[in-house]
Amino acid sequence: MLVEQFLREQKQLVEKELSRYITMLHAPDTLKQAMLYSLEAGGKRIRPLLLLATLHAFQKELAPGLPVACAIEMIHTYSLIHDDLPSMDNDDLRRGKPTNHKVFGEAMAILAGDGLLTHAFQVIADAPNIPPATKIALIAELAKAAGPEGMVAGQVADMEGEGKQLSLTALEYIHRHKTGKMLQYSVLAGALLAEATDAQLANLDAFASHLGLAFQIRDDILDIEGSEEKIGKNVGSDVANDKVTYPSLLTMAGAKDKLRFHIHEAKRYLQAANVQDDVLRYICDLVATRDH
Amino acid sequence: MLVEQFLREQKQLVEKELSRYITMLHAPDTLKQAMLYSLEAGGKRIRPLLLLATLHAFQKELAPGLPVACAIEMIHTYSLIHDDLPSMDNDDLRRGKPTNHKVFGEAMAILAGDGLLTHAFQVIADAPNIPPATKIALIAELAKAAGPEGMVAGQVADMEGEGKQLSLTALEYIHRHKTGKMLQYSVLAGALLAEATDAQLANLDAFASHLGLAFQIRDDILDIEGSEEKIGKNVGSDVANDKVTYPSLLTMAGAKDKLRFHIHEAKRYLQAANVQDDVLRYICDLVATRDH
Repeated sequence: MLVEQFLREQKQLVEKELSRYITMLHAPDTLKQAMLYSLEAGGKRIRPLLLLATLHAFQKELAPGLPVACAIEMIHTYSLIHDDLPSMDNDDLRRGKPTNHKVFGEAMAILAGDGLLTHAFQVIADAPNIPPATKIALIAELAKAAGPEGMVAGQVADMEGEGKQLSLTALEYIHRHKTGKMLQYSVLAGALLAEATDAQLANLDAFASHLGLAFQIRDDILDIEGSEEKIGKNVGSDVANDKVTYPSLLTMAGAKDKLRFHIHEAKRYLQAANVQDDVLRYICDLVATRDH
Repeated sequence: MLVEQFLREQKQLVEKELSRYITMLHAPDTLKQAMLYSLEAGGKRIRPLLLLATLHAFQKELAPGLPVACAIEMIHTYSLIHDDLPSMDNDDLRRGKPTNHKVFGEAMAILAGDGLLTHAFQVIADAPNIPPATKIALIAELAKAAGPEGMVAGQVADMEGEGKQLSLTALEYIHRHKTGKMLQYSVLAGALLAEATDAQLANLDAFASHLGLAFQIRDDILDIEGSEEKIGKNVGSDVANDKVTYPSLLTMAGAKDKLRFHIHEAKRYLQAANVQDDVLRYICDLVATRDH
């Protein structure tokens, strides 16, 4: 199928580029190895693919988006490395492999994360064939999505919510920030590169916001119903850690209803954006039904 | 004295702005407090002052440089927070106060650092009255100075050098990266904002490079000869940690010779840049003679 081929090819391209960016750095070997280890640990690459699928939706050249897609994945990867640290989630496994600090030690894991986060901004700043004003918007919005008003805020709220009985509003705050902002940014970045109209930007932003929540609800469901082998981490860890999740707040049936609702809304806004939406629509279905 | 007044006033301005940037964030309170705690812990603010003094040297308006000066200090502060962590230098005191993780816990300290690092890029991207091409250069060079080819590389090299007998070359690699790159960036950023000529950029870069090494040699000397009260941390910690320093490699007299050499070279390049150098020259003297 053409859409699957598109995603497979772009994923390979992103992964090749990610490795190239790190390999070419003039930096201590261990640092490069630690950065590469987590970048090359696999994953769905959903954020870079969302950006490239958005460019595709506007029938634009994908090449100018590739550095931005890589920058997003660098920031996502840094967040995983830091989240897994002993003082944070204290996870030993990620995608079926030992976490970064288990292999390189805590200090190097912190520095590998710092390095990936910082380098992401250089990758965008140095990217060819992006108009200066667009580049600045891409950088400002990335910092906002990843920083203290975005992903970092979500991580703090998640940490502070541990062991507490959260409301649905509090749970949504966490997810809208911890995973939502960077998913939204991925679509926004594609739309900015494609010079979308304001109306398209608004519709695509609403699309990505619903998609982000759907993504998280599916995550919560998989933690209960998923296969350990496919997810690459322990199933049931949310329950074991006494974490508030969509199923724990809404029952499993309620969580599945909510998942369907957000996928439906995502598709509605996507249609309103009036773009060639085959790949983005396919990603929606993937998010709704994914098993890892 | 006018130069002292200039530095005092600009320092106050930078500190006020730094607090304002964090206070106005829509972010969890604890996160903002943790970020503010380390930003407001004092310090010489030598990096922001170098930037503003460079703008002054070109007799340019200082206002457009203020956000960039604040971004530099945010990144410097993040690096201190992460360096102090138990898995890194494991320091309990910084500038006479408990380190960030001692007050807010390790996880929040990591996130406060991540937040400051990320937000620094937003502050520059959003800064008013900077031409787009200059802004992009400022961001690219900042990421380079702070990232895996700059400050992070220096921290890794420092860590990997612990307990080893280093050569002068290896010691200089550490300092050129760990502290040097960000000091050089501070001058470069001022020069880019002031639209310096290529010759001026080269001379000011050499000036900042020598100033950076002088700064570090003075640091090593102070660790032996300094007053604990003035430095705000334990004196003799380098010796206690079996760290290679300029005095340990070159003898105290040799280190002082080297300090004089770098200050002399710094001033020589400064003169060659052909700018109004009263404040930058004064900072040189401060670095050479500072007692904290």
